[in-house]
Order: sequence, then structure tokens, then C-alpha cells
Amino acid sequence: MPSEFDIIARHFVRPTPQAVLGPGDDCALLAPSPGMELSITTDMLVEGTHFLPGTDAWQLGWKTLAVSLSDLAAMGATPRWVLLAGSLPTADEAWIAAFADGLFACAGRYAVDLVGGDTTRGPLNLCLTALGEVPAGTALRRAGAQAGDEIWVSGRPGRAALGLAHLEGRLRLPETLSGECVAALQKPFPRVELGVRLREMKLASAAIDVSDGLLADLAHIAERSRLRAEVFEPQLPPLPAGVDSGFARHCQLAGGDDYELVFSAPPGKHEEIAGLASALELPLTHIGRIVHGEPEVRLLDETGGVRVLASRGFDHFA
Amino acid sequence: MPSEFDIIARHFVRPTPQAVLGPGDDCALLAPSPGMELSITTDMLVEGTHFLPGTDAWQLGWKTLAVSLSDLAAMGATPRWVLLAGSLPTADEAWIAAFADGLFACAGRYAVDLVGGDTTRGPLNLCLTALGEVPAGTALRRAGAQAGDEIWVSGRPGRAALGLAHLEGRLRLPETLSGECVAALQKPFPRVELGVRLREMKLASAAIDVSDGLLADLAHIAERSRLRAEVFEPQLPPLPAGVDSGFARHCQLAGGDDYELVFSAPPGKHEEIAGLASALELPLTHIGRIVHGEPEVRLLDETGGVRVLASRGFDHFA
Repeated sequence: MPSEFDIIARHFVRPTPQAVLGPGDDCALLAPSPGMELSITTDMLVEGTHFLPGTDAWQLGWKTLAVSLSDLAAMGATPRWVLLAGSLPTADEAWIAAFADGLFACAGRYAVDLVGGDTTRGPLNLCLTALGEVPAGTALRRAGAQAGDEIWVSGRPGRAALGLAHLEGRLRLPETLSGECVAALQKPFPRVELGVRLREMKLASAAIDVSDGLLADLAHIAERSRLRAEVFEPQLPPLPAGVDSGFARHCQLAGGDDYELVFSAPPGKHEEIAGLASALELPLTHIGRIVHGEPEVRLLDETGGVRVLASRGFDHFA
Repeated sequence: MPSEFDIIARHFVRPTPQAVLGPGDDCALLAPSPGMELSITTDMLVEGTHFLPGTDAWQLGWKTLAVSLSDLAAMGATPRWVLLAGSLPTADEAWIAAFADGLFACAGRYAVDLVGGDTTRGPLNLCLTALGEVPAGTALRRAGAQAGDEIWVSGRPGRAALGLAHLEGRLRLPETLSGECVAALQKPFPRVELGVRLREMKLASAAIDVSDGLLADLAHIAERSRLRAEVFEPQLPPLPAGVDSGFARHCQLAGGDDYELVFSAPPGKHEEIAGLASALELPLTHIGRIVHGEPEVRLLDETGGVRVLASRGFDHFA
């Protein structure tokens, strides 16, 4: 007789056309494509730390996968396979079914196969490992920025943090804005197509996804590239109307969970980048530049004065 | 200023000669070998479910890696890369340092690189993903057993369960035995060399590692191969002296956590298997056979009578 966890595990066994062997054996078997490097990342999501207790199961399923695909996007890799390990306090089949539906909705959107996993009992904890492929030697690394490069960001970072503040009652967003911001928090779209195109078109010299906050994540590029990143406040994407601009700016610069990409590109690529933005229907905004100097991030106001410094992690900015 | 979790993460950043790019970017980059398939598995270990609270950190580090390498061994794969995600209630650096030392001791023993991971705060939970390589089409699968094959087991399964009973005070082992059994529980040696040799020498038709119990795990081979597995009680490895034989037999058949391999092999391979046992200094015992019939496991006594049935999971035997 199958155990309750066997029954639950079955919700996660769906066809795996991209795998040689999917779930059900000691390991999954994958056939990497010749000439490609494997890009791999693992993320653990803990209730209370990474998501609110009581988060909708479908949305949590989507987001659990989306955050890892965002790491692949930041390397310019094409997502292919994922594994999920989960610890659950109870075997609530309705919750599991909704979670699995959300996860597979995201898997379908980005054409990845869930090829293996592990289910166990314990405090709610989800660990996802995602594998992608990228032609050898072409991955977008954090360390690739060059002095003189321009800094770009996709989308409208800050919306997820506004959505969280709204849900937690710290702020009241106008109705037109709240839906969009809560969706940015609960159902982020990792910028996989953008990462792949930036790599294919040789546009980006370095890239990272915005998971901890724009300045904090940009600081990783500065640190790894051993250069300074300058962000020009007047060039930042427009702030949403109907919300305190100081708080909106804070969310834009320090809010996490947006999963946009920030990248450096050689100067003189504006036309190509504008064409890409148009093709992807995704804003791409030139927000700063890479210069020689201490590996840190400086936010400059319209007079060139330094507003904030971020040298490592978002502790500094907070 | 680095956060406490940054400091902790540094304990896990060591050289990764087998990776194109190790920890520190959005993803690790790996170069799979041409002509090889990737074998991948993920395991989650939860305090209180998979290990006792207060388990020695070094031993836990070793075992966290060992259990996943055992899954690779059961496919006949050569381990190459691992990723670790961990959730920790506190940032106890001494504990982390000991855990990392245990993990890297095992990584060194089996020549794998820790190429990525994630550290977060929460109830103690460890999630390890292990990747190995195997020549395309040659992995040892659970489904490969044939009627007429013989069943073999490595080592002396049951010792880990005896060690656990001893530690929990349910049983008092003689001193000569307790050290060996507690070591089997706390510092298991995954049978990587055995798996690789069984695959290279084309000896095994199917294999699985003994993590839930000999009969329960053998039932997975029976089920996947759609054949019956018969285990002959008189042929089982000798029970240790100085402990109740009924309980020792129960541990041998139903005890988990041994990480030996049970495998099927065509008949007439006794000489080659004996040579392999000798080369690896590891007992390999012929314990039964695969026959046509319902996919289940039967334990037969010396008269051929059916002692126990195991059809799926260890629920039945327990």
C-alpha cells in the first residue's frame, strides 16, 4: 500500500520528454547537449523567511521555480531540467495539488522538466535545483563588466516590495497599482528570454538578477569585476504614480524579489538594446555606468552628488 | 560588511578543480564529458526525521553527502559535483566549521567538488544535490532485472539499525560490536567503487542502494522490473554474535541507513563477483533470485516456506 507521501509524490510525476530517465529510480539521467556547459543553481525557500505563512499554494509553486530560473536567466542559460525537494508539516493533498499545478504552470511556460526530487516530513521548506545549458565559454558572469560599460535594468524593479508592503498593511496602494505590484511579488516572470538574447547578441558583459535589491545586486557585479558602478538617479525607471515617491524610490533601489536583470553593456548599443526591448515588450533602461574605482555602487543625484553607497549586501543600504 | 551568513558560506567555498565556475555567481558552470549521461539526485535531511537532534556536526556533514553519493553508486555513476542548500536556526560558526569539515572529508574521499549552494535561516534542514556521470546507456536501473538473475548484497546490512538501537538505549551491544555498528550509522561509506565496477564489468542487471531496508528496497527492483524477488533466509550474510538473533535479523532485513547495494546479476557470475569482492575488500553475498510472478519480495526459509512478503515500502514489513 502506498504511503501518503507516495501519493503526494505522484502529483509531481509528469512526462519528462527532455530527460533520458525521469523520477522513480535512484537518480534521474540527463543527456547534456554536446558543446554546451551546464549551468546549475540551488535555492531553499523557508516559510516565514522567504514567503508569508498562508501563502497561496499555487503561487508558491510558481515562485519556487521562478526564483531559480531567474538565476539561469542571469547567466544567459536556457533552462532545461529541475529537481524539487520538499519538507512538509502535513500531507495536505489539496495544498500539494495546487502547489504542483503552480510549479508545472511555470515549468510549462519556460519548457523545463521536473526530473527528480524528494519529499519528507518537517517544517515547510522547499529546495529547488535548476539546470540550464549555455554554449561553452559564453555564460554571462558577474565578473565581466569593463570600465566604460553602461548599466541597464529590465522592467520596473520595486513593484514586488510595494506589493509586499501593501499586503502587510504598511501602505495602501491605489487599486490600479496594487494588482500589478502584488502580481510582481507572487508571480514573477524570470527574464529567461532576455538573458538568452543578451548572451546570443553579445550585448551584456555582466549580468545578475535583482533578488535582494537593485543596488545590492549591482554591488556583486562591482565587486566581482573590481570596478565601481555609478547609478544616475534621474535616469532610473519612472516611479509609479499614487504612492509616496520616497518610499517608492527606496523599494526601487533596495526592494528584493523582483527578478529583473541588471546588466552591463558596452557603450553604443542603445539601438540594439532598444530593439530587444521592443521585441520582448520589456522596458530596458540605461541607468548608469561602470568606472574605475573602489568596487562599490554609488547613487548619484542630478548634480553628481553621491546619495548612497552600497558596497556589499543590502545591509548597508538598509 | 559581510553578514554572518556570508561568513558561514565561506566555510563551504573551497577549490573546485572539476568545475568551469564554482560558487560565487548566479550559477555554477560545469562541463559535462562528451558521450556521458548526467546522473542527478537530490535528498533532503531534516532534524528529528533523518537524524537525531544533537548529532555530531562532523558526522552529519559526512553523512549528508554520503547518502546522495549512494544514489549515484546505485546507478553505477562516477560522482563529480555537488550543491548544498541549508537552513540553520542559528549561525553557530563552530558547528558550521565542523559540519563543513565532515562534508569535505567525504567529498575528498570520493573526489567530488562542492560547486554551489544556498544558506538561509530556519529549522535545521539540509538539501544536497549530487551529480555524476555514466557512459550513455549504461546506467544501472531498477527496471533491468531479468527472470533467472541472482540477487546479491554488499557488506553486512543491519549494522546501522543495530547502532541506532544501541544509541537510543533500546539494546546493549557488546563493545566489540557497538563501535562498528555506530560507525555504520554515523559514517557510512557509499559503495561508489562497487557501483562503477558492476557497471563497467557488465555484472549487474539492476541495482538499488539499501536506504530504507533490504527487503523494502529490493521491492523497488521487483516492482520496476515487474518480477518477483525471492530471498533465501539461510543464505543471508551471517548475523553478528552477541546480540539477539531475531532482532538482528529484523535489522538486517528492514533496517535502513546502511547504504549497501543490492543488485541482480545473471547466473554464472560467481567467480567474477568473488574476484570483485576480493579486490574491493567488501563481502558480496548471493542471497536470492529473480523469478516470474507478482512484483513483490518473498523471504523463504530453509524449507522454501514464505516467511514475509514485502510489496512496496517498508510499511508492510514493519
